[in-house]
Amino acid sequence: MHPGFAFKIAITTGEPAGVGPELTALALARALLTESPAWPDTHFTVLGDTALLETRAKAVGVDWFALLATGYLTVRHQGLAAPARAGQLNAKNSQYVLALLDAAIDGALAENFDAIVTAPLQKSVINEFGIPFTGHTEYLAARTGTAQVVMMLAGSRTARTESAVLATATPTSASVQNSARLPKISRVLGHDFRVALATTHLPLKEVAAALTIDKLMATLGIIDFNLRRDFGIRQPRILVTGLNPHAGEQGHLGHEEIEVIIPALEQAQALGIDARGPYPADTLFQPRYLDQADCVLAMYHDQGLPVLKYATFGRGINVTLGLPIIRTSVDHGTALDLAGTGQADPASLLEAIDAAVVMARHRRFTQLNLVSSI
Amino acid sequence: MHPGFAFKIAITTGEPAGVGPELTALALARALLTESPAWPDTHFTVLGDTALLETRAKAVGVDWFALLATGYLTVRHQGLAAPARAGQLNAKNSQYVLALLDAAIDGALAENFDAIVTAPLQKSVINEFGIPFTGHTEYLAARTGTAQVVMMLAGSRTARTESAVLATATPTSASVQNSARLPKISRVLGHDFRVALATTHLPLKEVAAALTIDKLMATLGIIDFNLRRDFGIRQPRILVTGLNPHAGEQGHLGHEEIEVIIPALEQAQALGIDARGPYPADTLFQPRYLDQADCVLAMYHDQGLPVLKYATFGRGINVTLGLPIIRTSVDHGTALDLAGTGQADPASLLEAIDAAVVMARHRRFTQLNLVSSI
Repeated sequence: MHPGFAFKIAITTGEPAGVGPELTALALARALLTESPAWPDTHFTVLGDTALLETRAKAVGVDWFALLATGYLTVRHQGLAAPARAGQLNAKNSQYVLALLDAAIDGALAENFDAIVTAPLQKSVINEFGIPFTGHTEYLAARTGTAQVVMMLAGSRTARTESAVLATATPTSASVQNSARLPKISRVLGHDFRVALATTHLPLKEVAAALTIDKLMATLGIIDFNLRRDFGIRQPRILVTGLNPHAGEQGHLGHEEIEVIIPALEQAQALGIDARGPYPADTLFQPRYLDQADCVLAMYHDQGLPVLKYATFGRGINVTLGLPIIRTSVDHGTALDLAGTGQADPASLLEAIDAAVVMARHRRFTQLNLVSSI
Repeated sequence: MHPGFAFKIAITTGEPAGVGPELTALALARALLTESPAWPDTHFTVLGDTALLETRAKAVGVDWFALLATGYLTVRHQGLAAPARAGQLNAKNSQYVLALLDAAIDGALAENFDAIVTAPLQKSVINEFGIPFTGHTEYLAARTGTAQVVMMLAGSRTARTESAVLATATPTSASVQNSARLPKISRVLGHDFRVALATTHLPLKEVAAALTIDKLMATLGIIDFNLRRDFGIRQPRILVTGLNPHAGEQGHLGHEEIEVIIPALEQAQALGIDARGPYPADTLFQPRYLDQADCVLAMYHDQGLPVLKYATFGRGINVTLGLPIIRTSVDHGTALDLAGTGQADPASLLEAIDAAVVMARHRRFTQLNLVSSI
């Protein structure tokens, strides 16, 4: 289809009332409308309504036709079900949003795409429309027939300065159209902070009972395998938190560490997985530990994500591990209040696209190595 | 007793095998062995064994007699029960550790001290000795007849650069004795990140049931009152997390927000307390929210402390709110492996001492204002 390109990435532009369409335009303009495009061997298929994309690009000062003329992207048109206004949800477009996702998933399963990047959608409006939907991650697992997936967030602790640079350099109309002045983006390979979750969207009181030795073992296995295959890390080191304060203090503050986490760690270690812990969560997230970790496995949502999002400062990304396909995403929502204003920052989407490209490269390299060693 | 001083602070030097004695010496040397001492109107009573303090001060390069000669401190001797070696716990000294604490508490209750600062002790060894002990905070509550206290950690998000400066400026033997070269310490008034906890050292599975409207209301009342009285904040704004991921998503991910947290917030607001929420914990700890908050109330230990400790980077302090006395502490433990080596950083203890001085000043000012308005 695009024979000149080594890699093909799909980008779903998500909820049409949100910032997804304009962030896609901003991110691709910043990366591709330059003298030295960020990913010269990669083609992007942008999934969305052509007229919507053109309108939103224009609203935030991106010359959409100049972008298309670079040859690095094509639009796969999917017509809106109802008119889309920035900031105003319309439940009728739920099927549109899911159609984008389905096309991306089907294309990736058919190996037409090496990875998919998803802009945010609005769960509530899809449910309101009558389609049960608990989130991208669960939908992807179901559609690809995957029994267990792992949610991982990643970013750079050390990118604060760089982040400030990107923030101040957020393109105005003039600067985007003047492609020579666009700043170069950073590479995801610099990520030094990854947090995976053993449980995700559960009420807090159900977390303890949801942890089992088998599930935790499988989670460690998925993290280890995916960090090797898709991130090029030869021997990933995973640092694991306790469930309870101070990791249970030898049973004084809870028994799950002794009964579940330590046995799971021992089993994982016996398989050669470099998983260590359990460590108290309040003191684990310090440079002297994080510098040694390829990933921290937190036991639940609010134990791991506040510190990851604080440290990565609006530039974190979300990766779903365990799927047959590569999928990355932003770490923010639809930001309805910012849609159409040009104030939303494409930094997280840029990082998510860059991560997808780098992961696709690693997976290809892994596969080639496997073939050559047969 | 020390008529020339406006304020009197007690410092308990804690576990004699740990870093408490040497950090006390390092912190006071850095603050007082200078041309312009940090707190010229404040006297310090250091509680501990005189010989131990002298030995540990010498081990880390502090001229203990020069420090005493400044006139800003005196030692209240309490003899060790057994010889103390750096790094080697001896359960026999449990009574010594508790005697230091008792003397400080009694002195503060008798108004001989305006505040107490506690160096770390080792819970396990006290329990091993046969004295049930769950922590400083609980001990202080019991000894002062206080039904409910609130644990709050505080520090500066913006002090990273300064923190690096202090870290590289950690005094060597030579630099401590050469008092003119000691760096000036920062003031705690710059703290811009405070996290209080609705529950503290509970197994995770007991957290949800421990939250009640009445307890949460009382917690908000204690934070509001103490931030006014001891921190000089006229109208404290408290941002409150949810218990569940995404603050329960309108009941989809748990009901405690609807059944407990929102009613408690409404009752607190009706009393004029500026408490807001519940907010999702994973996105609350961002500059645009923290810049507006005098304190974040997290529902449990590992929801609030990983991000606070990450952001304040070894310079956080611990404050017990709700006691009749002012008490501050470090945010770290006894660091047995570092004791006697001179490698432990006094930054957190310096901040804890500075906070105690500033809080004592605010409380005095509040009391004087109250008297004059009668």
